[in-house]
Amino acid sequence: MDELSDFARQIFRSQPFTRFIGAELDSVGLGTAAISLRVAEHHTQQHGFVHGGVISYLADNALTFAGGLALGGDALTSEFKINYVKPAAGTQLVARAQTKAVGKRQAVCQCEIWAVADGNETLCAIAQGTIIALK
Amino acid sequence: MDELSDFARQIFRSQPFTRFIGAELDSVGLGTAAISLRVAEHHTQQHGFVHGGVISYLADNALTFAGGLALGGDALTSEFKINYVKPAAGTQLVARAQTKAVGKRQAVCQCEIWAVADGNETLCAIAQGTIIALK
Amino acid sequence: MDELSDFARQIFRSQPFTRFIGAELDSVGLGTAAISLRVAEHHTQQHGFVHGGVISYLADNALTFAGGLALGGDALTSEFKINYVKPAAGTQLVARAQTKAVGKRQAVCQCEIWAVADGNETLCAIAQGTIIALK
Amino acid sequence: MDELSDFARQIFRSQPFTRFIGAELDSVGLGTAAISLRVAEHHTQQHGFVHGGVISYLADNALTFAGGLALGGDALTSEFKINYVKPAAGTQLVARAQTKAVGKRQAVCQCEIWAVADGNETLCAIAQGTIIALK
Repeated sequence: MDELSDFARQIFRSQPFTRFIGAELDSVGLGTAAISLRVAEHHTQQHGFVHGGVISYLADNALTFAGGLALGGDALTSEFKINYVKPAAGTQLVARAQTKAVGKRQAVCQCEIWAVADGNETLCAIAQGTIIALK
Repeated sequence: MDELSDFARQIFRSQPFTRFIGAELDSVGLGTAAISLRVAEHHTQQHGFVHGGVISYLADNALTFAGGLALGGDALTSEFKINYVKPAAGTQLVARAQTKAVGKRQAVCQCEIWAVADGNETLCAIAQGTIIALK
Repeated sequence: MDELSDFARQIFRSQPFTRFIGAELDSVGLGTAAISLRVAEHHTQQHGFVHGGVISYLADNALTFAGGLALGGDALTSEFKINYVKPAAGTQLVARAQTKAVGKRQAVCQCEIWAVADGNETLCAIAQGTIIALK
Repeated sequence: MDELSDFARQIFRSQPFTRFIGAELDSVGLGTAAISLRVAEHHTQQHGFVHGGVISYLADNALTFAGGLALGGDALTSEFKINYVKPAAGTQLVARAQTKAVGKRQAVCQCEIWAVADGNETLCAIAQGTIIALK
């Protein structure tokens, strides 16, 4: 698992868009991943909430890493679905993904995206998707 | 329609994340919207393709604008689903969304995301989602 | 809650397709519902597994009842997504849905569908969707 | 294509649940399939409309056949998403699915489900999903 964690962290750091948007890989586990983002003004939409595209990035990436960790290597998101349940406001977002089922070639994962404000977490979105092993 | 188009363009320009990511609203119509992005290195993932999060942003936003134009005002994406069908490579991405059904409060829309390289377009992803009218 | 449970059971019994397919409402709670089905040959597809359409019916209906119980009355499924993760074989299927977020007009719910064989449960599918209150 | 069409029709007829629910395979093509259902009272829910589970069966099955025809053999639905856009009333439902993208192992397809009443068709639902080749 240590080797796999290192591999996940290395892939995460090597994603230019992830650096551009400013996300961090908080933790990885056996089929789980948590990604966080310190919210800045350039992450928002017209009403001052975090843009849905930022939230869907977090969901997509957390799902990929959770699935890749379950599959044991590099992976990509084949598809996912996201429901936005609350406008995302706060200083930080955290996406926590876990694997619900895994086979040889694909994993099915779920993700919750929480907004943190004044130490309180609010559920902003939930997602579900399919991750495919590369190779 | 002219007034509604102007309103859509104004909302689009007022999204900080949209400016940050560098997307442009190419065209709007009756329940349709096209958003494009000139691809840069900071939009990519670990293998040099455009990151899924960028593609999901384009889908999310094109769906919102298509639905908002069908609903006649400000709107937000309640949920959507996206299938990535090809790695996105090229100089430009174009997301084209259209409304398939519209009621008083919500519209259901579909979106295709194409990658443009050397004048050829390749379908990269398709999405489907629900847009809700604000107010 | 007792009144709401009775209302849910009454609606369930009044669905002709539910009687036709032979499903039963096992339990209801605050934003939760469990629906089961004794598997028969007429529920299967060409390989002898339970047909995906039966599983999607269970998901759709369990999501509707979980959301309706959270919303406090009659409701309908606006949309949902389902991932089939294992072929469904066994003597019984159980769909367990729970509400993840609820507002005035809609609830977002998740559902797991399990196959029971020889007293063991296998996860066959997971689903996520939006339930809308009627009136 | 003729051989593949025959194979599709044979698989369709060999699905016990399809016979139980009473669906018919109207037409098949290169990555397309149309399935119809003569609506009966036992297909309905508590308000007299066709039950969402019937519509999701039609979507699931039409997607599978469209994808299988694109992939060239037996296939199964890995996942799909459906948006119900209008209550389904009428004498007949028709689900028309087409393949949007196909690779060696999987196809991504869309489906529209229409209700027919007095010769008029109303769009009731749209769906999108992933079909995987068996073997």
